Amino acid sequence: MSKVSFDNRLMFTYESKSFPGVNKVAALVRQDLYLVTGFHADEYTRGCRCKNLIIYGTVDKSDYLDEFESGGLIDLSEVRGKWEVYSFQVIDNPMEGVDHAVVIAGSDKRGTIYGLFHLSELLGVSPLVNWNHVLPKKKKNVFLTDAVNMVSKQPSVKYRGFFINDEWPAFGNWATEHFGGINAECYERVFELLLRLKGNYLWPAMWNSNFSMDGPGLESARLADEYGVVMSTSHHEPCMRSGEEYRLLRGENSIYGDAWDFRANRDGITRFWRDGLIRNKSFENVITLGMRGERDSRILGQDATLKDNIDLIRDVLKTQNELIKETIDSDLKKVPRQIVLFSEVEEFFYGDDKTKGLMGDPQLEDVTLILSDNNVGYTRTLPSKEIADHKGGFGMYYHMDMHGGPYSFKWIGATYLPRVWEQMTAAYEFGVRQIWVTNVGDIGTQELGLSYFLDLAYDIDKWGGTDAAITKEYMNEWAEKQFGAMLPLSGRNKAKKLLWDYTALLEKRRHEIMNTDVYHPLHFGEADRILAISDEILKESAALKKRIESKDLSAFISLLHYPACGTANLMKMWILAGRNELYARQNRIEANDLIQDIDKCVQDDAALIDEYETVDDGFYKGFGKSEHVGFVNWNEEDNRYPLRYLVYGANSPRMLVSRADDEHYMTGLEWNDRPQTWKNMLRPDVDSIEFDLISGSEKPFRYKISTDCSWLLFSKTEGEVAKRERIKLTVNKALLPDKVTGVFQVEGEGIGRANVTVEAAPNAAPKGLFVESDGYICIEARHFCGKEDVGKSGFKVLDPYGRSGSAIKSFPVTEDFTGKRKRPSVTYKFFASQDGEYELTFELAPSTPVTFKPEQNIGFSINGSKVQIMNTVKDPSIPFFLSPQWAREARDNVKKVTACVKCVKGENTLLFYGMSPGIVLERILLVRQGSEIPKSYLGPGESYICLENALKEDYEEERNE
Amino acid sequence: MSKVSFDNRLMFTYESKSFPGVNKVAALVRQDLYLVTGFHADEYTRGCRCKNLIIYGTVDKSDYLDEFESGGLIDLSEVRGKWEVYSFQVIDNPMEGVDHAVVIAGSDKRGTIYGLFHLSELLGVSPLVNWNHVLPKKKKNVFLTDAVNMVSKQPSVKYRGFFINDEWPAFGNWATEHFGGINAECYERVFELLLRLKGNYLWPAMWNSNFSMDGPGLESARLADEYGVVMSTSHHEPCMRSGEEYRLLRGENSIYGDAWDFRANRDGITRFWRDGLIRNKSFENVITLGMRGERDSRILGQDATLKDNIDLIRDVLKTQNELIKETIDSDLKKVPRQIVLFSEVEEFFYGDDKTKGLMGDPQLEDVTLILSDNNVGYTRTLPSKEIADHKGGFGMYYHMDMHGGPYSFKWIGATYLPRVWEQMTAAYEFGVRQIWVTNVGDIGTQELGLSYFLDLAYDIDKWGGTDAAITKEYMNEWAEKQFGAMLPLSGRNKAKKLLWDYTALLEKRRHEIMNTDVYHPLHFGEADRILAISDEILKESAALKKRIESKDLSAFISLLHYPACGTANLMKMWILAGRNELYARQNRIEANDLIQDIDKCVQDDAALIDEYETVDDGFYKGFGKSEHVGFVNWNEEDNRYPLRYLVYGANSPRMLVSRADDEHYMTGLEWNDRPQTWKNMLRPDVDSIEFDLISGSEKPFRYKISTDCSWLLFSKTEGEVAKRERIKLTVNKALLPDKVTGVFQVEGEGIGRANVTVEAAPNAAPKGLFVESDGYICIEARHFCGKEDVGKSGFKVLDPYGRSGSAIKSFPVTEDFTGKRKRPSVTYKFFASQDGEYELTFELAPSTPVTFKPEQNIGFSINGSKVQIMNTVKDPSIPFFLSPQWAREARDNVKKVTACVKCVKGENTLLFYGMSPGIVLERILLVRQGSEIPKSYLGPGESYICLENALKEDYEEERNE
Repeated sequence: MSKVSFDNRLMFTYESKSFPGVNKVAALVRQDLYLVTGFHADEYTRGCRCKNLIIYGTVDKSDYLDEFESGGLIDLSEVRGKWEVYSFQVIDNPMEGVDHAVVIAGSDKRGTIYGLFHLSELLGVSPLVNWNHVLPKKKKNVFLTDAVNMVSKQPSVKYRGFFINDEWPAFGNWATEHFGGINAECYERVFELLLRLKGNYLWPAMWNSNFSMDGPGLESARLADEYGVVMSTSHHEPCMRSGEEYRLLRGENSIYGDAWDFRANRDGITRFWRDGLIRNKSFENVITLGMRGERDSRILGQDATLKDNIDLIRDVLKTQNELIKETIDSDLKKVPRQIVLFSEVEEFFYGDDKTKGLMGDPQLEDVTLILSDNNVGYTRTLPSKEIADHKGGFGMYYHMDMHGGPYSFKWIGATYLPRVWEQMTAAYEFGVRQIWVTNVGDIGTQELGLSYFLDLAYDIDKWGGTDAAITKEYMNEWAEKQFGAMLPLSGRNKAKKLLWDYTALLEKRRHEIMNTDVYHPLHFGEADRILAISDEILKESAALKKRIESKDLSAFISLLHYPACGTANLMKMWILAGRNELYARQNRIEANDLIQDIDKCVQDDAALIDEYETVDDGFYKGFGKSEHVGFVNWNEEDNRYPLRYLVYGANSPRMLVSRADDEHYMTGLEWNDRPQTWKNMLRPDVDSIEFDLISGSEKPFRYKISTDCSWLLFSKTEGEVAKRERIKLTVNKALLPDKVTGVFQVEGEGIGRANVTVEAAPNAAPKGLFVESDGYICIEARHFCGKEDVGKSGFKVLDPYGRSGSAIKSFPVTEDFTGKRKRPSVTYKFFASQDGEYELTFELAPSTPVTFKPEQNIGFSINGSKVQIMNTVKDPSIPFFLSPQWAREARDNVKKVTACVKCVKGENTLLFYGMSPGIVLERILLVRQGSEIPKSYLGPGESYICLENALKEDYEEERNE
Repeated sequence: MSKVSFDNRLMFTYESKSFPGVNKVAALVRQDLYLVTGFHADEYTRGCRCKNLIIYGTVDKSDYLDEFESGGLIDLSEVRGKWEVYSFQVIDNPMEGVDHAVVIAGSDKRGTIYGLFHLSELLGVSPLVNWNHVLPKKKKNVFLTDAVNMVSKQPSVKYRGFFINDEWPAFGNWATEHFGGINAECYERVFELLLRLKGNYLWPAMWNSNFSMDGPGLESARLADEYGVVMSTSHHEPCMRSGEEYRLLRGENSIYGDAWDFRANRDGITRFWRDGLIRNKSFENVITLGMRGERDSRILGQDATLKDNIDLIRDVLKTQNELIKETIDSDLKKVPRQIVLFSEVEEFFYGDDKTKGLMGDPQLEDVTLILSDNNVGYTRTLPSKEIADHKGGFGMYYHMDMHGGPYSFKWIGATYLPRVWEQMTAAYEFGVRQIWVTNVGDIGTQELGLSYFLDLAYDIDKWGGTDAAITKEYMNEWAEKQFGAMLPLSGRNKAKKLLWDYTALLEKRRHEIMNTDVYHPLHFGEADRILAISDEILKESAALKKRIESKDLSAFISLLHYPACGTANLMKMWILAGRNELYARQNRIEANDLIQDIDKCVQDDAALIDEYETVDDGFYKGFGKSEHVGFVNWNEEDNRYPLRYLVYGANSPRMLVSRADDEHYMTGLEWNDRPQTWKNMLRPDVDSIEFDLISGSEKPFRYKISTDCSWLLFSKTEGEVAKRERIKLTVNKALLPDKVTGVFQVEGEGIGRANVTVEAAPNAAPKGLFVESDGYICIEARHFCGKEDVGKSGFKVLDPYGRSGSAIKSFPVTEDFTGKRKRPSVTYKFFASQDGEYELTFELAPSTPVTFKPEQNIGFSINGSKVQIMNTVKDPSIPFFLSPQWAREARDNVKKVTACVKCVKGENTLLFYGMSPGIVLERILLVRQGSEIPKSYLGPGESYICLENALKEDYEEERNE
């Protein structure tokens, strides 16, 4: 067994013929090893005596490797000629005087770099060691044996990277603070992060900075090339020039003219592009083709026809390709190029019935077609069979940060891994394998999502697949990497739960679009649940923080405490504000007490940002600056913190009697009271109801609860209410002979008497059927009772997933069954209380059609009826993207599709069929016509089902999760 | 010239054969005289020497009068046999030893009493001397000459009185506090008030008291009869028994049975009625017939048919008449009886197509039919020609206080005299002359309205007529009576204005239904105007109060200061609350400053009530108790004080640029700003616009205003805004050559730049036409330019009137022109900016059809088109009363009737025709299709019209009023 010890005798080779970037990375790795071992590795000089040696090199760029290969010590055939592959070998006696060695042999510059960073990771160094000061565990007697020997696979996706976008105020301030600008020094930090995360590709910041001018000069571009970072530019910046460059260089006397207009200023623009290509030609780039308007706007006005646009783009593409031939390589195949089908450019690509689009245009032959998501993380069109073998391949431009419609999210990273997993794995299956680029805004607090995105692109086999639980595994592993050195296992487990909980909150609703109208303060207890989760996060994270040594606070706060607590505190603020508003509208005197709680949240919001921006001597200063509260426009303009409502109490004592989960209340007054009937306890799984006695006045009231029904038991039957008293009403259902109806009275002394009717029934229910109650049946999609696959196609449960926590999806994801006779299906059974019409709602993930045609079908049949196929696109006459449906679904993270169905009293069978790709079903809701279910964001909980014991435990476990 | 001096030698006669009530009143008058002169008048003994003597008596009940008549000293023929008439004569030497005398000779008990009180009034004693402690001016050398000699007219209406209703919490608390209950001692005070106000008829309190049981016993009824007060019972209390009596007497073993059900308990109910009739038969009564359910509900359930109801009532009436014949007088003609067509009873009277109603039923032959108003002071059906000669005559039950739908108003008297004048004068014209009874709730603060109502009933010739200005005269005279002794003329004039201003505020909107949604905080400056009036009232009344001697505070506070300031303060509170709400929703930081102002109003509301209830040793204690803020139901249940809104400022400086009268604002931000165009200055009468620079953050911003237009002048062009700065933009229109368009910028430093376009035009306008501007033309109805009468029928201007201040109405009020060929009309001319459709809205008084048929027509024609007749009843398929239209109009005090008309560019002529009775037109609004005028309660101000000078001054004077 060969073995290398990382002791004070460890040395590193150095070859001047190596890529300079590789040597720079080796220096980083030497620093990593020092953090672990406490020893600085010396540089090895050939012929020296050396106990443990790290030898690294790139195939055909290293004398050591040449020698070892020719000496048969290592086999480079698995590496040579590959893309970003490395061999990592622990061997003995590689050379005279050297006892043990790690030999890292990269197929190319980045292969070697990944191999070097692999060494760091093997020794427990996080990729975020320098980005977030994740300090590795200091270890004694560190060694590696040949058990770790391996040759890496080629990455799943060729170009993997991110986009620093929307860089003000956060990234811009951060860069200015630490580096004096968005310059090469700043980018060196970014390149390191990218490479450690196994990325290789970057779109630089471009709101108000010019990558190839601000280095200073080309310094950033030069440095990128040195590090092996493949530079590109964003979707609307052709020919390696930043969008803002033109603004700086244009002018009446400019050689580039004074109009960003290819028709009016063809010469100037062409020259502008040519000069950019020449300037950056010596670096490794993927060149953006095409053209949009300035500052990411439409190239032609709204009046221009589709054909006008397409003709213009064709002209542009031709010109650009000619320029590339002229300046870079006459063989265009050799020049990586891309065009991004973002926003309206997608329309130009597909064209319409009358106008042929750019699809199949020879100018695009070897150009990578970068598709886009819907701005919030759901992919739009994916490669259809028609273009599947497009030579340039496909890419994906994916948003984890957005400055644009339907809403901006730029503050704390709001990426929920299962969404990325589901969407990007599917994209890969559809053939999107050439370029993956994600918009991460200012990078700060995006580390978790970015890590996963790049790891998934690097190794889709490991982190993709058809089981969503892989994302939990990833998260756990990621948490181990970041917090392994600072927390014991119990603490790390808490950290994992915190990561999961805060990102799951964001999957329900993102920060910027939270407001008092999202979660209903009372209905179905949804606000209470969100508040409980938020409070738990705040409490647990604060407790964890106390256990963190000060040297580790930088990583703990930046990667966990700040994003988790910032999120939880914001959610809490809005829940309390919603409560305050509703309570105030109901004249509850307790409304006023909430003001100070809301104030505290607002203060804590600022305090959490301040802590993040000041920890580690201001290491993250700038990253917390984005506005994030109460957006009323797509961006932060005119945003609103919550209003606080103050009430005056009524002049006389006032009583409100209200179910804890209902906004309707009784007053006990003679004329206006609306007596209620509570039916919850007809549900077999409910044997208690909580209700509140609430004061609408500063003057307290005394109450007395009375009833003739011996089966109604109250936690308290008299007392005085100054603000609110919660009473629990319990029924011992075992004693009920049959369905019963009872009445109780709440008498407010000197006020009046509220009468409540209660219905309850013994716990009998048909087995295996979801039972209607209060006029509705709600079923979690995962709880099908039967399933039929077609060939290899069939539904699988996604867990975790989506805003509801789980879902089902048909795999393989590329299959479209709409036009087929046999389709995979799942079966649900439920018990309806009446014959008649029900409104059936499918709650789906808000995915978009994978085709440009606005069509994405689901299918269902009820009680054996003919399969109904429904297009989930509500208005197929307009493109789905930018439609009102798109905006609504993107905000609420749910697509609701509704049909009217006939049910029979008793057992009903509903089949849900796999149809179009991209369909993910989360929940099913049936509402009896004439029933109204209370307004809420998340909807009612699942209906009762009586199950065999084993299944029951399974269900209950889920519910407790 | 005969002359009586009111010196220390004044004496009063006393005859034991006089009505005891008359002697009691004489004692009151003696006390009145003492207040004026400081001398107590002695009792005259026949044969004594007497310098000045007051002799009073009732024809045929006075030896003095018999002697004088037979001696030819006075002529009683003008008095004898009349109803409530008195002769008032100053004569010399009536008897041996008597030098001078006033001889008051009444035709009957009340005639004498009115004559006695006439003496008090002649000496400057207010009828409210004892009710409000209005102390008369102390005078020396008081005398009366025979210049005052007169014989009074018979009152215009036979029975004139009020209803003490909805007596809790106000009247009930007051009575309990001062008299230990609603008993005879309490009623004695009420009777005096009634008689001094020249009333004679009363419906007693009946919510929880029994007039004929609580005196104690019959004492109150006996005392009423003694005073000459004709007692009756409210609309649903037949046979002189209070509604609550049955509740007290019923029971399983009761002789009256245990069901208020004429079919199931005919014997019990009949016996109950018989016993009531026997009990009260010796007193002067008007007996209520008919039957409703208990506590003023429907007699039969909602399921009963119209015929069921009518049959039942017929049966009831027959039974009741039989009982009256049996117990009181076999000649029913001699027994005053009434039936009240209130609520659904009206339907039973009229019946429908299939079911003949009670109209014409022999049982009702001599029974007075009491009609009702719409609950808020607009009469419902009036006697049609068909029933005009009904032998029993007609009455009116009129609400100045309401506990019921569409909303209750029970706090401060909210009666605007022109409404009473217009409605009750019309009712009189229609033949409603037998009984007038007004619901005055607790009486407290209703004194002004009640005085007018009873004075109008007493002498319609004096206070009715066709000129609304008579109400101002009345108010002035009333103010002189109450404040003449305590204030100099300048102060009295202020008092008159205060009375007028606060009642006019209430005519726009009553207290209980004020809320933040009534007056728009900004649009058309309506809230500012209401606030200015309110502030003026508060300031002026407080200033006046300082000038009042403490002995007069009782009257000043109860009759003026409290109702005026209570009203103004409440209006102010809601205006500020509306501002706070809107400002908060706009994130104006100044919103928070309003909280303390709102708090102050809430405190002042309580303080004003407290002052009213404690002044004069608690003389009014109880009268201020009614809830009066923020009704959300028809009654006070669940009522709401204003919410107060607190905002957080934005994190960065934030600028809002807003016209002072517009809720839309610009932010100066790049993406979301909505530049505005201000067109006001196209109006010839507008040469300036005010706009606000508002801060949305605690952080102030600096601004700079710039423009290229030399004709745009700003009151300020740069500065810093911490909360708000108002800028005045002026245009010197004399310098404008033609219509111009200009742009100016408001730059918020570090924020952005708002662009405003301004249009202005020279002051040229076509003469004599109302000119369209901002898409609308608004015309006050009084500003017609032509008028055509038909015979004696024609429109007259009502001023003051209604929520807008003036109106027009066609007189005589009984004429219906709907089916006629010739109709009176008025003409309006206006200038439209475009050919096209306009929405024409007539703003009418919210009167109800005078017929049971839901039809009330208006007519108009435009540019010579055929006359269009429109039914103002929107849904004639249901009764107007209780319809949604009724409820809406009753709240807003306006009826809006809309039609679409075609206008031509340039001059247009609109004719408005007299059609159905009851139509009162206040304003006309034309809105060009496609234009939207800002939401408001009162609507836009009148459009510009270029007039000849004389007319112009007249208009301007009105506007400044």
